[in-house]
Amino acid sequence: MPDIYQELIKLAESDMYPLHMPGHKRNLESTPLKGAFRCDITEIYGFDNLHDEKGILLDAEKRAAALYGADETFFLINGSTGGILSAVSAAVPDGGNILAARGSHKSFYHAAYLRRLNIEYLPPKLIEPYGVFDGYSAAEVEEVLDRSGESISAVFITSPTYEGKSSDIRGIAEVCHSRSIPLIVDAAHGAHFGMAGGLPENAVQQGADIVIHSVHKTLPSMTQTALIHIQGELVDRNLLKRFLRIYQSSSPSYVLMASIDLCIKEMEERREEFANKLISYRKMLQDETRHCQRVRILPPEEFEDPSKVLVYSDCMAMTGQQLYDILREEYALQLEMAGDRHALAIITGWDTEEGIRRLIDAVCSIDKKLSGEKVYDAAVTIKKFHLPGVHMPMHEAWDAEKETVDLSTAAGCIAGDFIGLYPPGIPFLVPGEEIGKEHLEDIARYLEEGRNLQGIESSENGDNKGIIDIRRKIICVRQR
Amino acid sequence: MPDIYQELIKLAESDMYPLHMPGHKRNLESTPLKGAFRCDITEIYGFDNLHDEKGILLDAEKRAAALYGADETFFLINGSTGGILSAVSAAVPDGGNILAARGSHKSFYHAAYLRRLNIEYLPPKLIEPYGVFDGYSAAEVEEVLDRSGESISAVFITSPTYEGKSSDIRGIAEVCHSRSIPLIVDAAHGAHFGMAGGLPENAVQQGADIVIHSVHKTLPSMTQTALIHIQGELVDRNLLKRFLRIYQSSSPSYVLMASIDLCIKEMEERREEFANKLISYRKMLQDETRHCQRVRILPPEEFEDPSKVLVYSDCMAMTGQQLYDILREEYALQLEMAGDRHALAIITGWDTEEGIRRLIDAVCSIDKKLSGEKVYDAAVTIKKFHLPGVHMPMHEAWDAEKETVDLSTAAGCIAGDFIGLYPPGIPFLVPGEEIGKEHLEDIARYLEEGRNLQGIESSENGDNKGIIDIRRKIICVRQR
Repeated sequence: MPDIYQELIKLAESDMYPLHMPGHKRNLESTPLKGAFRCDITEIYGFDNLHDEKGILLDAEKRAAALYGADETFFLINGSTGGILSAVSAAVPDGGNILAARGSHKSFYHAAYLRRLNIEYLPPKLIEPYGVFDGYSAAEVEEVLDRSGESISAVFITSPTYEGKSSDIRGIAEVCHSRSIPLIVDAAHGAHFGMAGGLPENAVQQGADIVIHSVHKTLPSMTQTALIHIQGELVDRNLLKRFLRIYQSSSPSYVLMASIDLCIKEMEERREEFANKLISYRKMLQDETRHCQRVRILPPEEFEDPSKVLVYSDCMAMTGQQLYDILREEYALQLEMAGDRHALAIITGWDTEEGIRRLIDAVCSIDKKLSGEKVYDAAVTIKKFHLPGVHMPMHEAWDAEKETVDLSTAAGCIAGDFIGLYPPGIPFLVPGEEIGKEHLEDIARYLEEGRNLQGIESSENGDNKGIIDIRRKIICVRQR
Repeated sequence: MPDIYQELIKLAESDMYPLHMPGHKRNLESTPLKGAFRCDITEIYGFDNLHDEKGILLDAEKRAAALYGADETFFLINGSTGGILSAVSAAVPDGGNILAARGSHKSFYHAAYLRRLNIEYLPPKLIEPYGVFDGYSAAEVEEVLDRSGESISAVFITSPTYEGKSSDIRGIAEVCHSRSIPLIVDAAHGAHFGMAGGLPENAVQQGADIVIHSVHKTLPSMTQTALIHIQGELVDRNLLKRFLRIYQSSSPSYVLMASIDLCIKEMEERREEFANKLISYRKMLQDETRHCQRVRILPPEEFEDPSKVLVYSDCMAMTGQQLYDILREEYALQLEMAGDRHALAIITGWDTEEGIRRLIDAVCSIDKKLSGEKVYDAAVTIKKFHLPGVHMPMHEAWDAEKETVDLSTAAGCIAGDFIGLYPPGIPFLVPGEEIGKEHLEDIARYLEEGRNLQGIESSENGDNKGIIDIRRKIICVRQR
């Protein structure tokens, strides 16, 4: 069966002349991107239409559905973001109620804002001492659903988390279905799950109604590509399709779509091989750093996803940010992100043994250095998640009149914007929530550590000799 | 000043090893897309963040702003769609009123749906005998604004149109600004305007408050890339930025962003050259088909944009669809779309003289054939735009309970979905509008001509000998 990419190449090699978009006319020879430009077309004869698929795009989506065993699968070219916006919009009526983990991705909050939803939260669960979000059990979800009665229209869970923790999707799906409400799983980081033995089970197989997979995060597709799978009848598929058309470009990139299809075909043919590679890389990492004491790699028993490698500073020797910087600057290893006391590496079946070795050597050598020296105190406080009181619905607060307040005096104010670290883009303050002393302490610490904190305004006061002080302000709902 | 692409190549050639997304680890050698994969990264150290830009992405956006002379410009990686959704959402309060041309792109209606806007329409203007949308004068806009009083929050105009007709943006901007309301211009097809003498003026220069440009349509960027420019103070820039974050992937493609930046640099350096090429190609087309009588190329005097070449069947010899098919099947020329009695070609400065010659030869030979034969009647009816009565707000009708009605009996029903031809994706029926006999006649004709009509359901009844009849149904609001 021909794939999108083969069809694009056939066209590029044919005598057909393009009197249509795109403007470059597949006629750019000067850059290594030319291979992409060569395949970059618009919806011409024979190439189907993502928003009304009947031909090669439908075939490709069916291939993806078959790979994951889903009823129906749609390609996403606006990232998992487009899928999450569409899933939430289709599953919950405008102004309705949804139950979600507090540690959901920003795009979930954006969907709730656009549709004016009231959000019931699953109490945040952090894993001490790592300060990362944990997964949920069926009982935890059931308890909140019992409390909230009939009003909840859907449940939204992120599994696996950014750091690789899974929830009991099978059990949670049963709890939801016993109430005839759909379970939406943001599995952006779990597209590789279930690809072979030794990997955790996939949310599609576990019975979720809608699953969103980023195929660029742990599988070999291009950034900004993803899949959305739908199963069963609890979500109106026409409505889902409507929102996919709304939130995604009417000029979808054939290069992105071809890369999704190439990825699916690659997995059809070689998923065992890549899964085994990933698992063996992960084993290497654990085995060969087993002796490390001050900087160690957290074992897969604690984080189900072998792709997520938390390099953890076990003593008070350094912060996650310092670890992240040292790995980049001294060992030329670019990691995914820095946590409080860990740096997160993502590995896949497309890594090279040389790259994995380099990480092993780096961890061992940093650990050795630390063991040699006197250990200094990096004064790392592990993030605790302080669930703030909710004073007004998020969508109202975000649209309300605002004022900026000095961090020093913001305790007790109501947040007017989202505040969180990027990555992963999970806000610890949401509009409408009360800002507590503990939030302000966290913010001050993150700023000091130079973390990428979003939602804080800074104004610099200075003279011709330079900056005298930087005043950090927080956007609050104006108090009357 | 280094561009995004150079930085990506520098990284690819460096010793830095990727322990981060994307999963392919820039390690795919097997496809000509590898040049793209090589540049495909996530937001790592030094590569900025599209949604909170401070570094190379901000520099690149400033380059684009300088090229167009805009106050501020943002990159769009979810197409002009993402820009139109954001512009309308930021310029008009939830539930507010907007004045728009009836022939606006679907993404405008989607924005109005998400924000529950009431749409005041500029009466549709079609150019006879071509059946394509015309532009608007300042007086036409002013007249509707006078009628609607104070309630309108913004004006939305598409200029140039898909076929290359411009509105008086300068005059319309003045009318809007005299009322302190912003003008949003969907200039998706006009990114090349103002690039050099001989091209129409650009909407940014003409004083529009927000302008959306698809840089892939007539400039050499990749499909799904665009720019949004903002000027003046009539639209809250923080609010615009908020919606750009909402409607666009939190994992934006560096390949798409690099292609925008490459396009901008290309235009900085060679815009005169490409503009002159386009204009000379256009002149060739007119001059060398001047003698054609039955199939001719409509002159630039009628359609300002030299990029839009309407090959028009002046006699009743053939429909636009037939013309489009013949050009593809017999002359290997893939055009952009088929109209009622024309086929639309898009040419740019990246076309080759060989390609342009091939179009000239094809037009001349088809014209010659037709002149030879007895002309048969293709019974082409030119589309008239029948502005339907509006029975309920679009967003209510689209969410209302539905029923499907046979085309034969649908007259008088209220449309429950959008119905239109794709391309260009401009609906001639919008949810909430009354379906008239004339609409049903158009629909029947489009189906007969095999046009790509969206919004109609068909169910095939057949037996083992094949299809006996195809029943076409239209989705209507359920009547109580």
